[in-house]
Amino acid sequence: MFIFNLLIILVAAGLGRVIAAKIKQPAILGELVFGMILGSIGIVTLTDSLNHLADIGIIILLFSAGLALDFQEFKRLGKPSVVVAFSGVILPFILGYVAAILFGFSQIIALFIGTALVATSVGVNTEVLSELKMLKSRIGTLIMGAAIADDVIGIILLGIVTGIAATGSIIIGKTIFVVLSAILFFLLTLTLGVKIFKKVLSHVTVKPENLLLLGLVIAFSFALFTESIGLALIIGAFVGGLLLGQTYIARSLWEKTTLIGESFFIPIFFVTIGMQFDIRTFTSIGFFAVVLIILAILGKLIGCGFGAKLCGFSQKESLAVGVAMIPRAGVELILLKLGMHYGIISTSLASAILMMVIVTTLITPPLLTKALKNITQKYERCI
Amino acid sequence: MFIFNLLIILVAAGLGRVIAAKIKQPAILGELVFGMILGSIGIVTLTDSLNHLADIGIIILLFSAGLALDFQEFKRLGKPSVVVAFSGVILPFILGYVAAILFGFSQIIALFIGTALVATSVGVNTEVLSELKMLKSRIGTLIMGAAIADDVIGIILLGIVTGIAATGSIIIGKTIFVVLSAILFFLLTLTLGVKIFKKVLSHVTVKPENLLLLGLVIAFSFALFTESIGLALIIGAFVGGLLLGQTYIARSLWEKTTLIGESFFIPIFFVTIGMQFDIRTFTSIGFFAVVLIILAILGKLIGCGFGAKLCGFSQKESLAVGVAMIPRAGVELILLKLGMHYGIISTSLASAILMMVIVTTLITPPLLTKALKNITQKYERCI
Repeated sequence: MFIFNLLIILVAAGLGRVIAAKIKQPAILGELVFGMILGSIGIVTLTDSLNHLADIGIIILLFSAGLALDFQEFKRLGKPSVVVAFSGVILPFILGYVAAILFGFSQIIALFIGTALVATSVGVNTEVLSELKMLKSRIGTLIMGAAIADDVIGIILLGIVTGIAATGSIIIGKTIFVVLSAILFFLLTLTLGVKIFKKVLSHVTVKPENLLLLGLVIAFSFALFTESIGLALIIGAFVGGLLLGQTYIARSLWEKTTLIGESFFIPIFFVTIGMQFDIRTFTSIGFFAVVLIILAILGKLIGCGFGAKLCGFSQKESLAVGVAMIPRAGVELILLKLGMHYGIISTSLASAILMMVIVTTLITPPLLTKALKNITQKYERCI
Repeated sequence: MFIFNLLIILVAAGLGRVIAAKIKQPAILGELVFGMILGSIGIVTLTDSLNHLADIGIIILLFSAGLALDFQEFKRLGKPSVVVAFSGVILPFILGYVAAILFGFSQIIALFIGTALVATSVGVNTEVLSELKMLKSRIGTLIMGAAIADDVIGIILLGIVTGIAATGSIIIGKTIFVVLSAILFFLLTLTLGVKIFKKVLSHVTVKPENLLLLGLVIAFSFALFTESIGLALIIGAFVGGLLLGQTYIARSLWEKTTLIGESFFIPIFFVTIGMQFDIRTFTSIGFFAVVLIILAILGKLIGCGFGAKLCGFSQKESLAVGVAMIPRAGVELILLKLGMHYGIISTSLASAILMMVIVTTLITPPLLTKALKNITQKYERCI
């Protein structure tokens, strides 16, 4: 039964890719849409095993993005990334919170909705950048940096809000612990970590047939570590990739990781994401859902775009960054589950948030591809 | 928890490989032994998800072996393969049956023990051949052909014996169905199938990034098909590889399949096989277990070796074929479960069979490597 389900998912991914290519759309859009279709037909049920394959997919995606990145550029763009992330967090949060209050929801629900608009789904923009081979570009580096910073902020906010939901007040100790460990983790890995990795690997010869195995061991180790200190799996995977990206095995490892990811695990991730989008919720769409979707889009577009502009990026670049940060799918889905678990949000509110997740996820790949191609063409004209 | 378990298994596989290479042993032996150690320590429990990854591993292993094989040679060696398989089935079966009767076991138990000595574990010899890059050689082709034929016979025998256990008599209808569908499947795929695959693929251009995805879809489809007609998953995967191996994508697909297999799925398969070998059963080893092990080894060595000699292979080649067919692990483990399920075999008898499985699996990689290297050196001297 598992092999059957897996086969159906791979076929859906393949069809999605081929058709997307035919109509000049990014492959990821095809995978998401065919996932939605699969979810609606209901011939495949998402088992633990399939979800675990999807987990490996998102870990490999972020790991290979880390491997491909220009580390010097990433460090140079550290400040702008954080600025973009923060301005792209504050505006959507305020918009969501105020809208919810205006619609007559309670304080705690308004906090939930504000948080639901915050965290960008780092998978979608990473995949689009990877498809366009723009991970090493200045704009790609900024987007990755901002998306990772955004994810950290989103997770911390999620912790605070669910803490409030569970106990009625902010759990200060835990929040400070996560914030401090996140800062410490990035500081240590991006300085000392890079040096240690370079040093150790320069003394070791890794046989070609063991290279990918070693890479995956490091990706999973870092992923587990960041999860254990309260951050997400993907953050560790990304940083693990970044560190290995500075060693002599980077190029060869990136090729192998991308192959195994793009051919198997990453399509499974996006198809299963699509499968969680139940098209039937479209029928119960209300006015609030429409407002939420518009705020979600404008919040990031204006918030992140403004942040990028502030840091000296061009109009087109700022727009691309704003578009890149639109998709929501990671933290939001956890938030939904927790919100319903604590009885804070109703089913209709949950379906409004889910609608927002679906629409923002689906519109981003084509929009971002267009926005990024605009910039590339400008660069090409310059050369 | 899943990622943690996976990480431990990958680390065990990596350590096993490196240490095996240090003491000049095949990588697979290291993976099996470190799997055994892991199973004895008990920090990782085999969940569904891990078993499913292992299933993908054995499918990919057989698929890429099919891809690598010399098809003309495979057809030429069809008759010798079947002869080797049959003579290697008959002798161990008789030896096991007679020994069990002499030890005072009942008819049905004797049938079970005879069957337990029959089926070769096709994974072990495939992996050793792949490590030594001898899949395309004459002897490698003969071993693969004989191992696949042996697997088909083993499955049919398993069906007959468990049918007897369940109903008290041979279920003739089902047996004939499996035999006929196996013959029909091989006839159709190896003649018409090859032509259709060649024809269809010559009209299609597969993008490099979709190549592996397409290959896996075909591997899983064939695997599911053979399982649905009563054969094993791996037989379909092997034949699927064989058909694709005759098309223009063969070389590139084989490289990609081997990479994803050897770096991730196949080591998981062998480590989890090792984990099922509980070292603590060694303490309860009885006289019958020793007899069983000796008969298991001699049965294949003499049975298959004699078959190969009969078909005109040299002394050294015949010996290598005999050694290659020694390991038992696939059908036997299913047989064990079924035997205990129907209450036919006792725990001590089950542990004797398990001992036989462990010993035959562990001794084969080093012995086969040695036997095959003997032949290669002879060939080299000829050139």
